[in-house]
Amino acid sequence: MADPIQRLVQQFARLPGIGEKTATRLAFHILRAPASQAHDLARALIDIRERIQLCASCCSLTERDPCLICADARRDRTVVCVVAHPTDLHAVERGGHYRGLYHVLHGVLSPLDGVGPDDLRISELLARLSGGEIREAILATSPNVEGEATAMYLARLIKPLGVRATRIASGVPIGGELEYVDQVTLTRAIEGRRDM
Amino acid sequence: MADPIQRLVQQFARLPGIGEKTATRLAFHILRAPASQAHDLARALIDIRERIQLCASCCSLTERDPCLICADARRDRTVVCVVAHPTDLHAVERGGHYRGLYHVLHGVLSPLDGVGPDDLRISELLARLSGGEIREAILATSPNVEGEATAMYLARLIKPLGVRATRIASGVPIGGELEYVDQVTLTRAIEGRRDM
Repeated sequence: MADPIQRLVQQFARLPGIGEKTATRLAFHILRAPASQAHDLARALIDIRERIQLCASCCSLTERDPCLICADARRDRTVVCVVAHPTDLHAVERGGHYRGLYHVLHGVLSPLDGVGPDDLRISELLARLSGGEIREAILATSPNVEGEATAMYLARLIKPLGVRATRIASGVPIGGELEYVDQVTLTRAIEGRRDM
Repeated sequence: MADPIQRLVQQFARLPGIGEKTATRLAFHILRAPASQAHDLARALIDIRERIQLCASCCSLTERDPCLICADARRDRTVVCVVAHPTDLHAVERGGHYRGLYHVLHGVLSPLDGVGPDDLRISELLARLSGGEIREAILATSPNVEGEATAMYLARLIKPLGVRATRIASGVPIGGELEYVDQVTLTRAIEGRRDM
């Protein structure tokens, strides 16, 4: 295979979930497609690295600092939703109902992977919560071992600041069938039952 | 989502087989990965469009003209393997046993899609075969409707030039289970039986 083709195959294959066969298919697609497609993708790749930075306030990825959400006067500035990754922020935003602010930790506590509190944006979070304006921190890390541990760790630090620390609900997913839900989720759903 | 992220997601989503969810995952991977990964992929995308051309002899994609295979003095210059796409050439090369030359048609005859003989590299093939050096053309288009029709069309043009036109064998794939092979393939495998 000619070198430039081989190199593009190798570069595509470095992306997660893309094996050599898919990478080869993508490279030949790029060769067949209009030249503008290769250039547009190349431009977007350069742009994202050059123009995206962390919002100094919420640590989310943004083109402008402060980010559009932190700068939006219509958002509720008394609530902060704490998420592990920028992708989680977008998942909550897609929901379309949350109107407060965010804080992105950029990871979860994971001693096995060598990720400790200093590797996350925790000090930035505590500084924000000490400001006095925020009254509630919704801990929205995933309900798995690391996510739960991170939420518990944060709750212990947040409560002494006089800020309410809440945890997103766990339970049976909307539209899910009870009989296919795992035991742990079902137990949690029953524990978390609410009056109707 | 910040514009540059959204743009990269859109560009990834234009690639075949990549939906919006995968595109989002890839874009955030690029953001987390070392900056060199974004730049290497961008460079490879530009390179492949700027540096890849068609070999004037076999019409394969190449960085140098003639291509490495046409320029290789150790290849058997009396046999040409005719394939539909550059990817097919690489598939045969990966086999590692074929030592002749190639000719890439860049498609197959497909009246329904408006692809006629003039849209393929057929005149280039006939010019090569008229040179006198080539004794056999192995028609290695896929054994489907368009591939068979293209092979038959080519065979009719090639034989008057005094060149042998052969067709790759169709039959049960090596390692395949007879009971799972479709009827047409099985019929063809029996028709194409050989003495042992």
